[in-house]
Amino acid sequence: MTNKSKRTELHELGEFRVIDHLTERAKSINKSTIKGVGDDAAVINMDGKKMVVTTDLLLEGVHFDLTYFPIRHLGYKAVIVNLSDVFAMNALPKQITVSIGVSKRFCLEDLDELYSGIYMACERYGVDLVGGDTSTSYTGLTLSITAIGEAKDEDLCYRSGAKLNDLLCVTGNLGAAYMGLQLLEREKKVFEGNPNIKPQFEGWDYILERFLKPEVRKTILEELHIAGIKPSAMIDISDGLSSEAMHICKNSKVGCRIYLEKLPIDQQTFKIAEEMHIDAIVAALNGGEDYELLFTVPIEFHEKILAIEGVSVIGHITPENTGAFLVTPDGNEIELRAQGWNALKEE
Amino acid sequence: MTNKSKRTELHELGEFRVIDHLTERAKSINKSTIKGVGDDAAVINMDGKKMVVTTDLLLEGVHFDLTYFPIRHLGYKAVIVNLSDVFAMNALPKQITVSIGVSKRFCLEDLDELYSGIYMACERYGVDLVGGDTSTSYTGLTLSITAIGEAKDEDLCYRSGAKLNDLLCVTGNLGAAYMGLQLLEREKKVFEGNPNIKPQFEGWDYILERFLKPEVRKTILEELHIAGIKPSAMIDISDGLSSEAMHICKNSKVGCRIYLEKLPIDQQTFKIAEEMHIDAIVAALNGGEDYELLFTVPIEFHEKILAIEGVSVIGHITPENTGAFLVTPDGNEIELRAQGWNALKEE
Repeated sequence: MTNKSKRTELHELGEFRVIDHLTERAKSINKSTIKGVGDDAAVINMDGKKMVVTTDLLLEGVHFDLTYFPIRHLGYKAVIVNLSDVFAMNALPKQITVSIGVSKRFCLEDLDELYSGIYMACERYGVDLVGGDTSTSYTGLTLSITAIGEAKDEDLCYRSGAKLNDLLCVTGNLGAAYMGLQLLEREKKVFEGNPNIKPQFEGWDYILERFLKPEVRKTILEELHIAGIKPSAMIDISDGLSSEAMHICKNSKVGCRIYLEKLPIDQQTFKIAEEMHIDAIVAALNGGEDYELLFTVPIEFHEKILAIEGVSVIGHITPENTGAFLVTPDGNEIELRAQGWNALKEE
Repeated sequence: MTNKSKRTELHELGEFRVIDHLTERAKSINKSTIKGVGDDAAVINMDGKKMVVTTDLLLEGVHFDLTYFPIRHLGYKAVIVNLSDVFAMNALPKQITVSIGVSKRFCLEDLDELYSGIYMACERYGVDLVGGDTSTSYTGLTLSITAIGEAKDEDLCYRSGAKLNDLLCVTGNLGAAYMGLQLLEREKKVFEGNPNIKPQFEGWDYILERFLKPEVRKTILEELHIAGIKPSAMIDISDGLSSEAMHICKNSKVGCRIYLEKLPIDQQTFKIAEEMHIDAIVAALNGGEDYELLFTVPIEFHEKILAIEGVSVIGHITPENTGAFLVTPDGNEIELRAQGWNALKEE
């Protein structure tokens, strides 16, 4: 570490500003680099065909808790998180690399479970495991996955393509994964207080699965393609709807209005949120880890979009100077905040 | 973790067998996957052009010690380690992604230093930083880098192409980085014992630089190309000469003989080894982190190879059933052992 007198704490800036700061010097010198830092994935030109590359680092204690996260599910989810970024470029994932760091707490049978989940996700989404790195670690499990995908140039969807009056659409529903996590954390605390109390998970299968075993909306992308609808902008929801909508607005130089009563929220999400005294709307806006797709389409596709099951139109794109707001049923406007997941929060 | 009764400790198998075990299920289903697990990098077909992908995970306390490793050098070396794998496929690196996990011990100024080293390596080798992931960590610094390169199909060099009677060649010299590490560790212990004693590094610049700021032998690859010599097999030396020679033998289904007196070892390596009572030959064979290139060429290139500065012919390829041996000046044969770096050693 440096001996310089100045010391700027990372949590003062937050994840997005730290990334901006560190990557502002990243100029591309290779012609093949089409898109560098700043979207769901990088885009590389290979004799016409476009390759997309994305990577995620998952650290035990920060991103997952193995006291309630089955290690096989962790392997599955770690792959999904990366494939989600590839699909969010409207590309098809083809290969992954998997690097792991493991402490001696883990035995070969644990790694077999982890890789079972990894291979299961690979098989379901037609992806090949092509490389990686294996190392010892002093502190639990570290997982780093890189996914590679392909797309035709004309199919690629960036965050930057949203246009005035485009419809803002989202797949599936929001906030369920976050509530699944809250339930797991609650039952963990109860169990730690009294190990004789059995965790209460009955009836909550859906929200638990949304957190523990998320899927990617591949079929919806196929339906959009068949219907001749190409999203003008797209992003996957990992940090929460507010944060991702703001990414689209910032990159596309537009504003947006999202209508509160249009937010797709599952009944189970509402039910557990009520039980736990959490606002389901806040979970939907800022919970994150939904791995749904947020995208924009030109307004002429309105009817066609409504015909596609599993897609909700939640708002529209406005001029940049109008900002990004949530509109309540009584017409109040609440400014969206990039709450995000803040991976650099103070420990 | 699983509750199964069987528990196989990872150090019982060692790194290579754990990797073999975990990746034996990795079948490739995509036509674009030309080469998956098992070489310096994976190879992906993109409309004719070949893309190579490699990844490395570096963990504080396991792979580096920041008490003597300047964080800027660490950034530089972390990139080099990956580019080395790309060059070892006889491909040209074009893009990297960088993921970091940082504890609150690190401030923005530390990350600036780290990224200075990363960008310096990118500039020197003409590589673009195109993506990554940034996260908090509870335990020091985690670095995961993925490098992407390009090659024409006919230029690619795998580990599997060595043929009977091929010459075994190595670039530069061996064991210097390992001795640099030993020196740093020695002086760290002295300093811990008495912080008033100044570390003794005078005269050891070369071995320290070999460990702290390695380079890749890009120019030698260019000279080979100009001379019309395509290596039949190639690998970079990260785990030590013995280990890498055995990788070539295993993948090419051949044996080899390496002549002890032909091993290129720098005078400084010999000198510090003598001072520290370490066998310089063992450092050259098993030290690792040399990031030199080990390659084979057909015997008809013998004269041409000798004309290329910085390349030593250290042995030749023999039939598979003769095994892999080091030949001493008096004609004794000592079997090579894949000592390797053993990243899964018992903690």
